[in-house]
Amino acid sequence: MTFKFKEVYLNNVSSIAGKYELEGPLKNYYDKTYDDLYIGTKSWEDAEIKLLSEAIDLAIKKENKKPELLISGDLLNQIVVSNYTASKLNIPYLGIYSACSTITEGLIIGSSLIDSKKIKSCICATSSHNNSAEKQFRYPIEYGSKKRTTSTFTTTGGAALFLSNKKTDIKIKSGTIGKVVDMGVNDANNMGAVMAPAAANTLYTHLLDQKIDSNYYDLILTGDLGRYGKDIFKEYMKKEYNITLNNYDDAACMIYDIYKENVYAGGSGPACMPLVFNSYIYKKLKNKEIKKVLLLATGALMSPTMSNLKKSIPAISHAISLEVI
Amino acid sequence: MTFKFKEVYLNNVSSIAGKYELEGPLKNYYDKTYDDLYIGTKSWEDAEIKLLSEAIDLAIKKENKKPELLISGDLLNQIVVSNYTASKLNIPYLGIYSACSTITEGLIIGSSLIDSKKIKSCICATSSHNNSAEKQFRYPIEYGSKKRTTSTFTTTGGAALFLSNKKTDIKIKSGTIGKVVDMGVNDANNMGAVMAPAAANTLYTHLLDQKIDSNYYDLILTGDLGRYGKDIFKEYMKKEYNITLNNYDDAACMIYDIYKENVYAGGSGPACMPLVFNSYIYKKLKNKEIKKVLLLATGALMSPTMSNLKKSIPAISHAISLEVI
Repeated sequence: MTFKFKEVYLNNVSSIAGKYELEGPLKNYYDKTYDDLYIGTKSWEDAEIKLLSEAIDLAIKKENKKPELLISGDLLNQIVVSNYTASKLNIPYLGIYSACSTITEGLIIGSSLIDSKKIKSCICATSSHNNSAEKQFRYPIEYGSKKRTTSTFTTTGGAALFLSNKKTDIKIKSGTIGKVVDMGVNDANNMGAVMAPAAANTLYTHLLDQKIDSNYYDLILTGDLGRYGKDIFKEYMKKEYNITLNNYDDAACMIYDIYKENVYAGGSGPACMPLVFNSYIYKKLKNKEIKKVLLLATGALMSPTMSNLKKSIPAISHAISLEVI
Repeated sequence: MTFKFKEVYLNNVSSIAGKYELEGPLKNYYDKTYDDLYIGTKSWEDAEIKLLSEAIDLAIKKENKKPELLISGDLLNQIVVSNYTASKLNIPYLGIYSACSTITEGLIIGSSLIDSKKIKSCICATSSHNNSAEKQFRYPIEYGSKKRTTSTFTTTGGAALFLSNKKTDIKIKSGTIGKVVDMGVNDANNMGAVMAPAAANTLYTHLLDQKIDSNYYDLILTGDLGRYGKDIFKEYMKKEYNITLNNYDDAACMIYDIYKENVYAGGSGPACMPLVFNSYIYKKLKNKEIKKVLLLATGALMSPTMSNLKKSIPAISHAISLEVI
């Protein structure tokens, strides 16, 4: 299912990143970074709330106005980071959850509402924090538990995108809502393998709905498949759909120096893709180095409870395309 | 923020309820009930997935077609009930979270997409299960921990609403997206008090945006304020906005016999309002006994983690109006 948008523009973006991202190759592209993992607060949850709040506040400051609506979600149970951040903003709020494809789900809902003139502007935002995620999904990092090579490393950051009907040189062109795909894999330490088929399904649907081929885009960017998932995705596209991807990369492999930093298979978390897009990719679009980008964020839709019940892991991917005009 | 919808209709509804609801006054109005809390499965999570799946399947069966899109959310961490249910449906899916106001958030998003002709049809669904919620938010019920009188009792059920542009006698007229309201209350055993100001804020905004007074509606129905929250809400509307509510009730007080059943202050959970609406109220609309209804579902946006951090509880309320034509 692909929606086309006529008059939806990306007005500005913001990115606030943490300590591990500061050691990565995109360190000079973020709006702001913290080398203190607590971000000056006393808990990992408060740290993540501060990252998201600062990202939203910065997007508002850059645009010099409040948006009409906030659409946000995050990994913490009951998306409390988004909820507590929204409670300080005093604007209408839609909470969403799509794990690490939250940002593209938000952009599709926001763009649809602007395109149909129900609203004029909105901020789509998300966050993640390595320590709040590890504490909730695995073990507190203080336990020092070991991980497998195929594990990914949750990014620490907050990111916001300000959309409106006000013309800029970056247009949001279309969005594809994904289906949940469950291939029967139940290895929570290999999310790349879990999510690759969902990304492939959404990419294929997107290309088919739009009647374009994959070379239409200067860059197709998945969210957090990681170094192993990235290869699985490329192979899956080739074998299942006979599509060879030439202009493809994965945000998980761009945000860290995956061969130097101790980040296993690469980045993950809802903030992974928007941190990469809102910094490095956005600059490339503004400079017109690339003009057509497809964001293909992917989310693993499990929980520790479902893993304990030995369930397989469902995954989803929502896509958003942006073009320089 | 209120959206007006022109051509969005309610095609059918479904309600699958559990054991405690079967003992309540609306027992004869549900599509299906179970007196086994496990719903024939082996875990509370699977039980809730079955309730939601059956509700969605029934709405599809009644309409004799699959909707183009599913919008769903629930209370469990990472909204896994919705995710796992969606993985069996093979249609595009948007996961949302707004605690017990999830159903009205879903209806607003779905109605907006139909109204702007981005989609023709969708199902908005939600669920809750007393035991899966107690296990996650408080203690497993087997511990037999005591509760306060102001606590509410999570409903067990699944509910789905099938919307489309296909004309029926019930029109979805408008939707109001709420703001997060945090009054500084941190008593997780008195959610009615926490959520009442959010409901009041959204109701006042809705009436103001539509330029109507509260008597416009034959029924204004809050979701799960409970017997104490209901009184607080009425008093708050009077004191804060000088509005006396005449045609008002609360689904939490309708779903159980609150003076006979051991349900403390009444029902709660995302399924509470849609179980009441999809059974008793829907029938009243179909029979034209009432013609104008405002659904004002309310959600408490906390988590046990945030309660442990001694945070106050933010709340939200999203509203949807329906009219017999």
